[in-house]
Amino acid sequence: MKRPILIYVLTGIIVILAAGIVGILIFMKNQPLPERGIAPIVEVAPREPDSAIWGTNFPNQYASLQQTYDNNTRTTYGGSEDYSKLEADPRLLTLFAGYPFSLEYNEERGHLRSLEDVESIARVNETTHATCYSCKSSNNPGLWDEMGMQAYDAMLFSEMTPNMENPIGCANCHEAGSMRLVVTNPALQNALEAQGLDWTTFTRQEMRTVVCGNCHVEYYFEGEDKLLIFPWANGTRVEEIYAYYTEEDFTDWTHPESGAPLLKAQHPEFEIFTGDSTHYAAGVACADCHMPYTRDGAAKYSDHNVRSPLLNAEAACGTCHTDVDYVTTRVAMIQSQVYTTLINTEDTILAAITAIKTASETAGVDEAMLTQARQLHREAQMYWDLIAAENSMGFHNPEYVLTTLYHATDVAHQAQLLALQAIP
Amino acid sequence: MKRPILIYVLTGIIVILAAGIVGILIFMKNQPLPERGIAPIVEVAPREPDSAIWGTNFPNQYASLQQTYDNNTRTTYGGSEDYSKLEADPRLLTLFAGYPFSLEYNEERGHLRSLEDVESIARVNETTHATCYSCKSSNNPGLWDEMGMQAYDAMLFSEMTPNMENPIGCANCHEAGSMRLVVTNPALQNALEAQGLDWTTFTRQEMRTVVCGNCHVEYYFEGEDKLLIFPWANGTRVEEIYAYYTEEDFTDWTHPESGAPLLKAQHPEFEIFTGDSTHYAAGVACADCHMPYTRDGAAKYSDHNVRSPLLNAEAACGTCHTDVDYVTTRVAMIQSQVYTTLINTEDTILAAITAIKTASETAGVDEAMLTQARQLHREAQMYWDLIAAENSMGFHNPEYVLTTLYHATDVAHQAQLLALQAIP
Repeated sequence: MKRPILIYVLTGIIVILAAGIVGILIFMKNQPLPERGIAPIVEVAPREPDSAIWGTNFPNQYASLQQTYDNNTRTTYGGSEDYSKLEADPRLLTLFAGYPFSLEYNEERGHLRSLEDVESIARVNETTHATCYSCKSSNNPGLWDEMGMQAYDAMLFSEMTPNMENPIGCANCHEAGSMRLVVTNPALQNALEAQGLDWTTFTRQEMRTVVCGNCHVEYYFEGEDKLLIFPWANGTRVEEIYAYYTEEDFTDWTHPESGAPLLKAQHPEFEIFTGDSTHYAAGVACADCHMPYTRDGAAKYSDHNVRSPLLNAEAACGTCHTDVDYVTTRVAMIQSQVYTTLINTEDTILAAITAIKTASETAGVDEAMLTQARQLHREAQMYWDLIAAENSMGFHNPEYVLTTLYHATDVAHQAQLLALQAIP
Repeated sequence: MKRPILIYVLTGIIVILAAGIVGILIFMKNQPLPERGIAPIVEVAPREPDSAIWGTNFPNQYASLQQTYDNNTRTTYGGSEDYSKLEADPRLLTLFAGYPFSLEYNEERGHLRSLEDVESIARVNETTHATCYSCKSSNNPGLWDEMGMQAYDAMLFSEMTPNMENPIGCANCHEAGSMRLVVTNPALQNALEAQGLDWTTFTRQEMRTVVCGNCHVEYYFEGEDKLLIFPWANGTRVEEIYAYYTEEDFTDWTHPESGAPLLKAQHPEFEIFTGDSTHYAAGVACADCHMPYTRDGAAKYSDHNVRSPLLNAEAACGTCHTDVDYVTTRVAMIQSQVYTTLINTEDTILAAITAIKTASETAGVDEAMLTQARQLHREAQMYWDLIAAENSMGFHNPEYVLTTLYHATDVAHQAQLLALQAIP
């Protein structure tokens, strides 16, 4: 009888110990890195701008980030090759006439090219402010902490250049030590606050979209000191952004032919994708498709070679979709429909520009109607450009994009019509 | 040793017998009904118009078909309630001015209401041809066999009425005996042949879409004898259908205000859905959503209470989609976007009509430009109506529908502009 009792007691002890170990492991898995008791190989200082230092602790993420330096592959409508958009579509020369985007406007390259590309673009001149560096360097989070965004933006581009040692890197999205995803761009912080949103309460999956909003957004430079602002006070939908600019009476430049006070859209991937797109509504984050989980042996990590999911469809789409050929064919079809619509929209805006120009050169023209026509040119061009500048050729939110282009064309036609009616 | 050998021999015999029985069962399962050796309770004559007779053999299908008599539920943008489209959207009164659709135009009810609804509609008068009965009765397949479509269509509506004893029923889509799905409408037969297609080679899953094309298509009545034609000789896309009408120089009526030679679109569900929609490309058939498989005890059958899948989303969407709430929310969003775009398109066409009318009443107007403006009104209205008349508020193919409405609006604006320019 003694042996069996001993076995029961020993078994009990082993079970209790095993349960304890499992419990500790589960607890540790849910803790940020340092508390997990896994000593990092090197300590990373807060806002450390040099991604190579972070890379010692995270070699897979760092190695894949390095690939963005040479991922210069062109897709049907985008990719990471710095081809000239102006050569690909000369309509842009007229649409952006009088504005630096008509001088040089290229498809963007990978994250690691951000710094060299912004420093070589013909749009930068001696009056350009440092604000243009806002999305180009991992030195920024530290600089913003140090000097504040206002002082940063007030500096000239050329004055800021010596501080810019690193292209986009770890510090733009991660907190050193904990590695959690963080909002680092003060303009995003302000824009979220203006909407009553506190990103520190967001889930990790939400942050896998929000941190992309550090840069992939529509923005403008306010006032003499070129303060970086995201125009989200009314919301992030196209009509809300446009209403904001109207309320602020903001204008980027006046078109030399139509005389319209125009706005240049930037790359509102965040706004278009989160505008109730099918994928966003289904809980998909930017990183799910653009940084799909991949493996190095037993280690699972997010691929930091951020690029078009079409270049990596098996991993990017295949995680959720069983038939990758089917879904990439759908992407191609949607993008083709959007592209055709986009080009037709440009032609309509060009016709409006010509009509307004002709009317403005006609004696006795109705100036009130002409002013109204110019406002409609402004509206059409902003709606169109928010889609044209967005990187996805509509795929991020097809129906939303098509109805936005519909509105741009509708309004451009109205501008053309008014210009015609303004002639006595 | 003798007993084991006997066991082996017996086991062998049993296995061979079992395999044989399984083989026979598999063979029988793949045979049409009569060859399966299951005697039907009643023999159904070829083209039997009375669905009640078929219903003796297929009580579940018949019982669900009966439900279409009272499935008068209205959905957000359609359903099976015969509300007046003219009251719901008075723009249609002007768009269809001068044409019977401005007299009475109702949302269609269920299949079993087809006959009473066509016989009571104000659009039918003493000159109406029997062609209008083509999609309204299960008497038709037999009549077409007997007299041919040409003679059928040449008769007057009132002359045909005594032959019309049954609403839409089994004989419209099924072959008696084998119960296989068949093309019964000679106009569909002709239209497929014109495209070099032989429906007898189609798979059963393909036929679960094609038989809906017996009726749910764009069509027109050709010549004095009002022969029923599907305008598919160039293909079934919107631009191909429009090109066909241009080549045929076909016109339904002349708009009393604009003077444009217009076309009335019917309900091109087949064309819009099969135009590379996401669902069609994924292999989904009309019947998968509108007649989802259901159960009566162990019997599985297609629900013949054909209606909006939104009224039956658990079965209709839930077979493929795990989150029915999510997908129905998406449907609502897409339909809302399409509806807004559709109404705006109507307003644009109305503006074009007004502009052309004004120009045509102006002395010295450029008649050539006016003619061109009228052609553009025709084109805009046909593109718009192919979407407006289609039952799905765009959901059958959202991007295709939105680009079609985009084109309608673009062309309507051009018509308006030309009319303005035609005035000296």
